Amino acid sequence: MINKLIEKIKKTNAPIVVGLDPMLSYVPEHILQKAFAEFGETLEGAAEAVWQFNKGIVDCICDLIPAVKPQIAMYEQFGVCGLQAFQKTVDYCHNKGLVVIGDIKRGDIGSTSAAYAAGHLGKVTVGKNKFSAFDEDFATVNPYFGTDGVGPFIDVCRQENKGLFILVKTSNPSSGEFQDRLVDGRPLYEYVGEKVAEWGAQHMGSSYSYIGAVVGATYPEVGKILRRAMPHTYILVPGYGAQGGRGADLVHYFNEDGLGAIVNSSRGIIAAYKQEQYARFAPSDYAEASRQAVLDMIADINGALEEAR
Amino acid sequence: MINKLIEKIKKTNAPIVVGLDPMLSYVPEHILQKAFAEFGETLEGAAEAVWQFNKGIVDCICDLIPAVKPQIAMYEQFGVCGLQAFQKTVDYCHNKGLVVIGDIKRGDIGSTSAAYAAGHLGKVTVGKNKFSAFDEDFATVNPYFGTDGVGPFIDVCRQENKGLFILVKTSNPSSGEFQDRLVDGRPLYEYVGEKVAEWGAQHMGSSYSYIGAVVGATYPEVGKILRRAMPHTYILVPGYGAQGGRGADLVHYFNEDGLGAIVNSSRGIIAAYKQEQYARFAPSDYAEASRQAVLDMIADINGALEEAR
Repeated sequence: MINKLIEKIKKTNAPIVVGLDPMLSYVPEHILQKAFAEFGETLEGAAEAVWQFNKGIVDCICDLIPAVKPQIAMYEQFGVCGLQAFQKTVDYCHNKGLVVIGDIKRGDIGSTSAAYAAGHLGKVTVGKNKFSAFDEDFATVNPYFGTDGVGPFIDVCRQENKGLFILVKTSNPSSGEFQDRLVDGRPLYEYVGEKVAEWGAQHMGSSYSYIGAVVGATYPEVGKILRRAMPHTYILVPGYGAQGGRGADLVHYFNEDGLGAIVNSSRGIIAAYKQEQYARFAPSDYAEASRQAVLDMIADINGALEEAR
Repeated sequence: MINKLIEKIKKTNAPIVVGLDPMLSYVPEHILQKAFAEFGETLEGAAEAVWQFNKGIVDCICDLIPAVKPQIAMYEQFGVCGLQAFQKTVDYCHNKGLVVIGDIKRGDIGSTSAAYAAGHLGKVTVGKNKFSAFDEDFATVNPYFGTDGVGPFIDVCRQENKGLFILVKTSNPSSGEFQDRLVDGRPLYEYVGEKVAEWGAQHMGSSYSYIGAVVGATYPEVGKILRRAMPHTYILVPGYGAQGGRGADLVHYFNEDGLGAIVNSSRGIIAAYKQEQYARFAPSDYAEASRQAVLDMIADINGALEEAR
C-alpha cells in the first residue's frame, strides 16, 4: 500500500493528504437544511449532513490528491449514525481511487489491538465468512503500549497489504510534556522514532516501509532530526495551515528523492470557504473553495521544495 | 461519578469491575446459532450474538458488582453493527444500575479529543438539540498528547459529572519499552502518574478525584510506588486473572481506607465456563459460571486485603 501511495503522490505531484474532519459548523447552510429536513435535527441528520458535505468536497478535489485522512472522532461524536457516515466516506473515497488513511489513533494491549486492526485494516471472521468492517488503507496508531501493542497492527498490514503511521511527535502545543522528556540526554520521541524505524525495516515496500510515522508540522526542527533518524520511514505531517505549519517549514521532512513525507491539512481545505482568503466563494461553492485551497497548498509545498533544491 | 462508583463499591463490598470484552469464541454455541439463524453469519449476526452473550452475563452478575468495563475494540471489529451492540450494552448496564467504564483509550489533539469526549461522556449539539451518543460514565484515555489532549475530556467530565482513567502503566509485557524509560533517573510512568495526580487535584469528588489512573496488575511493584505518588487518584487495575495478576499482588494498589483501586477481570469472568476450574458449568450455564468467577474474584481480593491489614 505504501507503493500505491507513493505512485499516487508522484502521479498527482501532490505530497498532500486532505483531512476529512467535518464539524457541523463547517457544513454550509443549504446542506444542513436539506439533511435536517429529511432526518430532523438528530444524530442521523448530523451524519447525513457530514456525509453530503464530504461527498461534495471529494467529488471536487479527488483528481488533485493522492489520499484523504478522515478523523474518526468527528464521526464517532455522532454515535452509530456518525460511524455509518465514516464508513460511507471511506467507501466513497475508495471508489474515487483515493488512498484512505483512517486517523483512528488506536493502540492497546495485544489482543485488543488485534481487534482494532481486524476492524480497521483487516478482516473479522464470523462463522464461515470474513468481513472487512471499516477497511481503511492506512491507520494511525498510538505507540504508548510498545511493541506488543503495535505488533497486531503490523501483522494485519503484512497480511492485507496495508500500512500504518505511528505517532512519534504530535503537532499539539503540549506534545512535549511527555514526548520531549529526555531519556539519556535524548528526547523520548527519538526513541519512539527509532523503534518505528526498527519495526519498519522488517516491513518494506520498494523504497519505503509501510510502517510510517506521524511528526507534526509545528515542530520543524524535530522533523529535520527524525527525517535523518528514519530514512526509509514515510512521515505523515499533520498541523499544516490552521495549526500553523507552512510549506517552507516542511522541506526537511522530505528526503532528497522528493519523497518521504505527506502533509495533511484538514480545516484549511474543507472549511476554506469560511476563510478570508477564499471569501470570493459563496457557501454554495464551498467545494470549489476547497479545490482552490488544495491547489494553493500544493503550490506552497512544491514551491518550497523546489526552492530548497 | 467517582462518588457514585465508591458508594457502589462499598455497597457491594466488591472493588472489582467486569470487562465486557466479548470475542465470538467465548459465545456459547446456543447463542451463536440463534443469532446466526436470525441474521446469518454476518456482522449483524455477530453483533447480536455478542449482545445476547453480554445480556446473559449482566443479568446474572449485576447484583454482585459496582461496574462494568466494555472494551470498545471488541465491538468496533464488527463495524457499525458492533458499535450498536456496544451502545445497547452500555444502556442495558445503566438500566441495571451499573457504572459503565468505556474502555476506549482515546486521545488526540485538543479539538479531536473534544469530539471523542462529547461522543463518549458528554453531549453533541445538532441544531437546537443535544444528544448523548454513547454516554459512558467513565472513559479510559491515552496521555501521549499531554495536557491539551487530555483537557477536553476533563472539561466534559466536570460539566457532566463523569470521570476518566488515564493510562499510566499498562499491563502488557512490552509496556516498559517507553513507559519505563528513565527520565532524570525516574521512569516515565512516574511523570505521567504525577501529571494525572496534578490534573486530578483540581477535580475532586469527596475523597478521591474523578480523574483516575490505569496501572496494570502485572507490575505490583509499580502499583506500590504509584499508589503513594497519587494518594487521591482512583486506580483502575487491568490484568487480573487471565493476564496473570492475583489478589495477593494487588493489596498495595489500595489505600488504608480499603479504597483507591478497582480491579478488572475480563476473560477470567466472561469466559469462565471455558476454564478447567469451572468445567462443571455447561455452556448453557455460562452466565452462572461467570457469577461463580465473580464471587471467587471478590473473595480472593477481599481475602488478600484482610490478610494485609
